[in-house]
Amino acid sequence: MSQTAVTPAFRKTTEIYRVGAKTLPQRYFVSLEVFGKEQELIFSKQWVLAGHQSQIAKAGDYFVREVARESVIIVRDQRGELHGFYNVCRHRGTRLCEGQFGHSSTIQCPYHAWTYGLDGRLVGAPHMDKVQGFDKAELSLHAVELALWEGFIFVNLADAPTPLEEVFAPLAGKFTHWNLPQLRSAKRIEYDVRANWKLIIENYSECYHCPGVHPALQKLTPYDLAENDLCEGPFLGGFMPITKGHSLTMTGNACALPVGDIKAEDHDRVFYYSVFPNMLLSMHPDFVMVHQLRPQSPERTLIHCDWFFHPEAFDRSDFHPNDAIEFWDMTNKQDWHVCELSQQGIASRAYQPGPYSPRESIPAAWDREYLRRMR
Amino acid sequence: MSQTAVTPAFRKTTEIYRVGAKTLPQRYFVSLEVFGKEQELIFSKQWVLAGHQSQIAKAGDYFVREVARESVIIVRDQRGELHGFYNVCRHRGTRLCEGQFGHSSTIQCPYHAWTYGLDGRLVGAPHMDKVQGFDKAELSLHAVELALWEGFIFVNLADAPTPLEEVFAPLAGKFTHWNLPQLRSAKRIEYDVRANWKLIIENYSECYHCPGVHPALQKLTPYDLAENDLCEGPFLGGFMPITKGHSLTMTGNACALPVGDIKAEDHDRVFYYSVFPNMLLSMHPDFVMVHQLRPQSPERTLIHCDWFFHPEAFDRSDFHPNDAIEFWDMTNKQDWHVCELSQQGIASRAYQPGPYSPRESIPAAWDREYLRRMR
Amino acid sequence: MSQTAVTPAFRKTTEIYRVGAKTLPQRYFVSLEVFGKEQELIFSKQWVLAGHQSQIAKAGDYFVREVARESVIIVRDQRGELHGFYNVCRHRGTRLCEGQFGHSSTIQCPYHAWTYGLDGRLVGAPHMDKVQGFDKAELSLHAVELALWEGFIFVNLADAPTPLEEVFAPLAGKFTHWNLPQLRSAKRIEYDVRANWKLIIENYSECYHCPGVHPALQKLTPYDLAENDLCEGPFLGGFMPITKGHSLTMTGNACALPVGDIKAEDHDRVFYYSVFPNMLLSMHPDFVMVHQLRPQSPERTLIHCDWFFHPEAFDRSDFHPNDAIEFWDMTNKQDWHVCELSQQGIASRAYQPGPYSPRESIPAAWDREYLRRMR
Repeated sequence: MSQTAVTPAFRKTTEIYRVGAKTLPQRYFVSLEVFGKEQELIFSKQWVLAGHQSQIAKAGDYFVREVARESVIIVRDQRGELHGFYNVCRHRGTRLCEGQFGHSSTIQCPYHAWTYGLDGRLVGAPHMDKVQGFDKAELSLHAVELALWEGFIFVNLADAPTPLEEVFAPLAGKFTHWNLPQLRSAKRIEYDVRANWKLIIENYSECYHCPGVHPALQKLTPYDLAENDLCEGPFLGGFMPITKGHSLTMTGNACALPVGDIKAEDHDRVFYYSVFPNMLLSMHPDFVMVHQLRPQSPERTLIHCDWFFHPEAFDRSDFHPNDAIEFWDMTNKQDWHVCELSQQGIASRAYQPGPYSPRESIPAAWDREYLRRMR
Repeated sequence: MSQTAVTPAFRKTTEIYRVGAKTLPQRYFVSLEVFGKEQELIFSKQWVLAGHQSQIAKAGDYFVREVARESVIIVRDQRGELHGFYNVCRHRGTRLCEGQFGHSSTIQCPYHAWTYGLDGRLVGAPHMDKVQGFDKAELSLHAVELALWEGFIFVNLADAPTPLEEVFAPLAGKFTHWNLPQLRSAKRIEYDVRANWKLIIENYSECYHCPGVHPALQKLTPYDLAENDLCEGPFLGGFMPITKGHSLTMTGNACALPVGDIKAEDHDRVFYYSVFPNMLLSMHPDFVMVHQLRPQSPERTLIHCDWFFHPEAFDRSDFHPNDAIEFWDMTNKQDWHVCELSQQGIASRAYQPGPYSPRESIPAAWDREYLRRMR
Repeated sequence: MSQTAVTPAFRKTTEIYRVGAKTLPQRYFVSLEVFGKEQELIFSKQWVLAGHQSQIAKAGDYFVREVARESVIIVRDQRGELHGFYNVCRHRGTRLCEGQFGHSSTIQCPYHAWTYGLDGRLVGAPHMDKVQGFDKAELSLHAVELALWEGFIFVNLADAPTPLEEVFAPLAGKFTHWNLPQLRSAKRIEYDVRANWKLIIENYSECYHCPGVHPALQKLTPYDLAENDLCEGPFLGGFMPITKGHSLTMTGNACALPVGDIKAEDHDRVFYYSVFPNMLLSMHPDFVMVHQLRPQSPERTLIHCDWFFHPEAFDRSDFHPNDAIEFWDMTNKQDWHVCELSQQGIASRAYQPGPYSPRESIPAAWDREYLRRMR
């Protein structure tokens, strides 16, 4: 497979609409069997967003992330290299790290004190030296594949996954202006949403719902002016114009230093992209919002939302991160609410796939990509 | 099928006892498979109590009721006609009405603002006019069959159900004296009971338990004087005498104007009838209590209990509804408690069907009717 | 089967280690099917600890215990004999006793007042005398087999179990010095642990974890000095020395009169034995701690922990039961925590059976016994 990173032209949502596109059948939103298949074919085989390199800046820093319902330790070793490990001791299976994040020079099991290096090698196992045939080298922590894209950490539970650079080739160089690897998160909010994860992505992928659901957003970024440049495949989205001189914040003013060397034409635009399967990337001139989805069951999804800013923005007097965070926290909750209502209705025997409108060409494209992955 | 409404004579419970009748086998109270079959053969095929016409007195009034675990909107349109609809938008399946009741001139989806008339027709769908072949007429709300009996609203999820008048023929004219269509509810209490719905109906259908479980009730209406006139089939029950000059209230006094033109002989009687599958109708001279059952799982039932009074009673100085409500709320809770104990015991491997006593001929008759419906 | 009670010699844990022993495969800790098989083959067929005779000292005293998810009434009748009954009325299956314990001259159903003697015979059933062919003798409470060992009450749900004396023959006379039948509990604590019951027993069976998990215990009883005399089979364990002149209490001092006629050499020893399947017996010179396990699901176990003392200890001024209770409550919670971490890690797809160390020969022996019972 070879892909070249040609940036396509922007087109209005309605121009890429395919007549006859309908929402997915009920089973995709309620069936445990489908959910299990998603965990196997998508979340255990694809590159899944787990975090950002700035979260583990120093040697010994680690965080713990759930991927496909597995607890994974992501750690920076003494040489600065990143590693991913299943959070499971090789002795009696005990969970090694309990907290969400931390700093340590080794990984030590809280039960019998077996100790691993930050590269996963077993370095201490009391009394086991007396056991005939015991070989520490055979009992390293089980590793998880890990790769970086624009500073974001992706993990892959497959044994021999397609390299991330190959999969992400269509995005190569595309977002350089936003300076993503250097950004730092000012805030994380965790949401527990009673809706299927696909409803959340479909919701993110259209602004047909904005007039009724998001009155404040609608004032700053009219719903019918979306233009998309990624219209088919695992990466989907484009931009919406922001009313000139404004920002998507409570006050309507910019809340921080620009995140990067934003092009003039992009100063009044917000870029929304979904990165299959679990990343939603919202790039504003002054901040970048990232949603990370973790499906828990057919009817429940946990979402981490981070707000990233330029590292130099933090110490300046014009830094007002809450102006953006409050705006989007409000908007997020409006979205989760309608997603939950959709989950409830779709569970009815009366539900049938309904017609997508011309304003919903991106959700329809996402559904097609999803079905390709589920084959 | 043709049935004529001949009122049968009243007979003592013990006279209609059949030797050898036993309680149902365990699986009927604990099996998810049986529960699913009940939802399919009974709650999705029979006329099920949903409410009373007085709850939606004006055009635009609606309430939302769960039937066979489906959310159904019941609404009065501009011409005064009642309609039932699945609470599911035809666009992306979103639940339309969130609250339990309300008033509106249209039904509008909170997600993308698709709008339906009170008769269910799609009248607004932004941007869909640009879609080739799109026809609003094909996207009306999915309707649910609805019919009235004595002012009570029944719904039926079947496609072509036997007309309600035909099913309810045995009751035609029987309760006219109680003035049921004109009554109004003063109070609704919702109970969440950890017992199978059939245990609740079996409990309602006998007073063999009254001496031990209901000491206050027992004083006003001795348990061994029940007389029944409906002894087999979907409608079962009769009356119990009330101590002369008393009423089933905390004070023992009448709490309101008589509900209707009650016959002299019925002035000291309370009539208890079960209406298959989910209505319990308790007619006192001064009020009518109605239980509406909604099975949630083999081990859990939600119950709505309403207390209805004469519409002219409300504004009078001799109106003391709490006198009745408190009495029956206390009595209800006593009943739910023993139903929950039965649920616990029946789940044991030691449970075997036990012998019904001569005082339990009505529960035994109800079990027979239930088994006929489950065939 | 014939077993003689020869007391074997004490041997260090490491001497009985078998090279190659590994922890159990994942399914034994997470599978509902395995859990069901355990309930059937072990908890419904073996003698299971239910309590101590001192809990029902007087005629009419009873307590209610859950065994294999069945509620069982254990009662002392007027003649002093103990009985076990399923907590299920023979009429309509209602649970008879609601509380955890009580005192009564009969067992009466709270629903329709059917009444049973303390020996289980039906002695009252209102109105049933009028039923042709009704025979009280056929409707006694369903009995559960019950037997005593050293004052502890064991029940067995099997129809014709191997007599308890035969099963417990290897322990005959072994613990006489501790005076177990005469002891009385000063305190019971109930723990709700999110871990498989086998993890709790495996944890109890080794002190390899003590240095890291129990710093206070470790000071009083060094982890590497365990010696065992029961090394294979349903009864497993031995002793650990206590630092001379000390006791396993918060202060390190003895907290009560010796429980029995303890041999001189045992004055500085604590004896730990697991009694298959659900009893953990910890005998100190001054008190006896007993854990009773009740598996609720593959991932959850309820544990009763009692602290028993000499009956004459209670009224003396040197009686400080909390000194022992607080010490072990702290230690218990340290154990439950690592058991819960193990449960979480073992549920991972990365878990594989790991190698037991030479210090874990007793858990390995327990696993072998468990697998024999599951065949």
